[in-house]
Amino acid sequence: MTLQQTITEMAARTKAASATLSILSTEKKNAVLKTVADLLIREKEYIQQQNAKDLSNGKEKGLSEAMLDRLALTDAVIDSMVQGLGELIALPDPVGTIEDFTTRPNGLQVGRMRVPLGVIAMIYESRPNVTIDGAALCLKAGNGIILRGGSEAIHSNLALGAVLKKALEEHGISPDAVQVVPVADREAVSYLLELEDTIDLVIPRGGEGLIRLVVSKSKIPVLKHYKGVCHVYVDKDADLTKAVPILINAKTHRPGVCNAMEGILIHRDVSDRFIPEVVSAMQELGVEFRGCPKSVAIDGRIKVADESDWGTEFLDLRVCIKVVSGFEEAAEYIRKYGSQHTESIVTENYTTARRFIAQTDASAVMVNASTRFNDGGQLGLGAEIGISTTKLHAYGPMGLTELTTRKFVVYGEGQTRK
Amino acid sequence: MTLQQTITEMAARTKAASATLSILSTEKKNAVLKTVADLLIREKEYIQQQNAKDLSNGKEKGLSEAMLDRLALTDAVIDSMVQGLGELIALPDPVGTIEDFTTRPNGLQVGRMRVPLGVIAMIYESRPNVTIDGAALCLKAGNGIILRGGSEAIHSNLALGAVLKKALEEHGISPDAVQVVPVADREAVSYLLELEDTIDLVIPRGGEGLIRLVVSKSKIPVLKHYKGVCHVYVDKDADLTKAVPILINAKTHRPGVCNAMEGILIHRDVSDRFIPEVVSAMQELGVEFRGCPKSVAIDGRIKVADESDWGTEFLDLRVCIKVVSGFEEAAEYIRKYGSQHTESIVTENYTTARRFIAQTDASAVMVNASTRFNDGGQLGLGAEIGISTTKLHAYGPMGLTELTTRKFVVYGEGQTRK
Repeated sequence: MTLQQTITEMAARTKAASATLSILSTEKKNAVLKTVADLLIREKEYIQQQNAKDLSNGKEKGLSEAMLDRLALTDAVIDSMVQGLGELIALPDPVGTIEDFTTRPNGLQVGRMRVPLGVIAMIYESRPNVTIDGAALCLKAGNGIILRGGSEAIHSNLALGAVLKKALEEHGISPDAVQVVPVADREAVSYLLELEDTIDLVIPRGGEGLIRLVVSKSKIPVLKHYKGVCHVYVDKDADLTKAVPILINAKTHRPGVCNAMEGILIHRDVSDRFIPEVVSAMQELGVEFRGCPKSVAIDGRIKVADESDWGTEFLDLRVCIKVVSGFEEAAEYIRKYGSQHTESIVTENYTTARRFIAQTDASAVMVNASTRFNDGGQLGLGAEIGISTTKLHAYGPMGLTELTTRKFVVYGEGQTRK
Repeated sequence: MTLQQTITEMAARTKAASATLSILSTEKKNAVLKTVADLLIREKEYIQQQNAKDLSNGKEKGLSEAMLDRLALTDAVIDSMVQGLGELIALPDPVGTIEDFTTRPNGLQVGRMRVPLGVIAMIYESRPNVTIDGAALCLKAGNGIILRGGSEAIHSNLALGAVLKKALEEHGISPDAVQVVPVADREAVSYLLELEDTIDLVIPRGGEGLIRLVVSKSKIPVLKHYKGVCHVYVDKDADLTKAVPILINAKTHRPGVCNAMEGILIHRDVSDRFIPEVVSAMQELGVEFRGCPKSVAIDGRIKVADESDWGTEFLDLRVCIKVVSGFEEAAEYIRKYGSQHTESIVTENYTTARRFIAQTDASAVMVNASTRFNDGGQLGLGAEIGISTTKLHAYGPMGLTELTTRKFVVYGEGQTRK
């Protein structure tokens, strides 16, 4: 069998199994997730043995310490997967809910029922715990799942995949519902992305290069974000006692993630008194400023920004700062350099707040809050599978509901169309 | 300027104009639509002159009578566009609605605001009235629109596009918000489908060949259905006085459309008495049956079906008929031959009805109703831009709401993440 045939057949088996998953009761799905958690603990030794192979191969290949660190399935990482499963079990199941139920003039009753998407392929190069976290979310929403992790984590991912399959089997469900692509070939991804009749959604997670590759090759819909270049605009009517903590939190709480702030825009009416205050507060925490000439003139601790700094996703303690003449210039800057991820304004002005909310195009638009809140857990969705900056289907964090779709259900008593 | 540059620049102008559209009041958008309706009447002579060029070119090229008929912008077609605009004006505007508004434990208020998608490209080969009907829907939902119709309708489409642009200008809105691709080159479509940073959604309307071409080339999300192979399953517990009118309506009300029925499945317990009744009733209306051996044995007026008949979208008065052993066989047939468009069951049995609704994977699943009801107007969405059998974003008819997305809006008072 060629690799293409293997991949095609694997996906077909997942699709066949997904029909069963789609009608499982919530109770049953939660029981499967509980078994996954139990097995992670019971099989820990085996999982860590397999993980050790990846770690030793990684060392040989010269992976960086940071990469080896992300690859390691330590006791703490396994505990966090177990805890995540517990939280997922507690979340309400969207499947089967009927929304927007109405009665038409001819007596037809029409509603929209939440149903699983079908089969989801995850293509990722991040930590192997995505194998459990991602698959568990897809399963709870009733979907079959095909997992394709990084080649450096193949033994770990196969071990975790075996745990998922075993849990399904223990509950009498076909283990085909979850598949881990067992080969490291890059070709495997290309073959997967052709299968538009079998796979309903592709979710890539990783660097911009991986995501662009998936988008350009895929015939299947893709939910993704390329990067997070988030800004906070400090308006002339800002309460500065709110602005400083928001800026500090947005930049320094976890600088390496997509909802961290990469740029500060400051209204010129408050720049003189505000910039020195914010630079002092943030420099103490290790933040390094790159600014426009006006900001540099106000505070010499700011370095002059290169053109390439604007709109850069630093993912570290660097931040851009720019003085703007008002709302319009801030909006224009965000349109030009933002990534439709998260944008926040600090203001006490009712009309300015409303304008910012209405006119800013981003998956999350905030008033007087840290950009770090653009996260499924923080916004009330529970666990998330990622954040979408594509507007189709989901814009922003994607939780269980975003892993489902809605079909029309129509209850009649013999109606025919006039 | 090369064609690629022309297309890229045209799309960029639409995107720039769409920012204005996205924040127009409902009142203003309705006023634009009213002006479009007025202009269609005022400019009728010009529109019909341009249409005459297409008709005469079409005759020269040897287009069929049916195609010329679809191309003609008669007084009646123009009246129907005007009427459609009136109905659209009356529909509620989804933009700006905030859904799922909640307060988080830390006091953050979180909601999901309906916003336009941005820029929509429609690629169609159908009647030129799509230029008005489609563009008007997109505009009411606050989107910029790029229209690419068939080359045989280019003069008609440009004339209708000019009406749309004039209406926007009369209300002080940039006419760039609507563009009609002015060239007949096939290449133009390929260039459009590359512009993932400018165009948010592509909607192809036409034959399966056109749609498959768009899907395979597009980097932009596509909403589409390839075809409509819809079935009605007459269960053993069916009320036959409901079944006959439903079957007649589903097949003969408008056989050439996607929600017309292409196959009848009949439970074997009722096949002996039911098949002759339904064949008599439907044959009288010109319906021609292709059946399984069992159905042919019951009624000699049924022709034996070829393997190629099953799952065929006839779009005429032919229909397949098959005797099945029960629910499971019907479900398996639908999985194999259906197109996830519309499936209906006729039954009085509560549990069977519930199983059918839960287990059937189609954009609309019905009990005791004609498949012809899978239509935006009939299901209560108002005007529709098409029916999607892709599960992402929209599954089933797409109305105004489906031409929008939701962004998260977050109202804080200085919250930072712990």
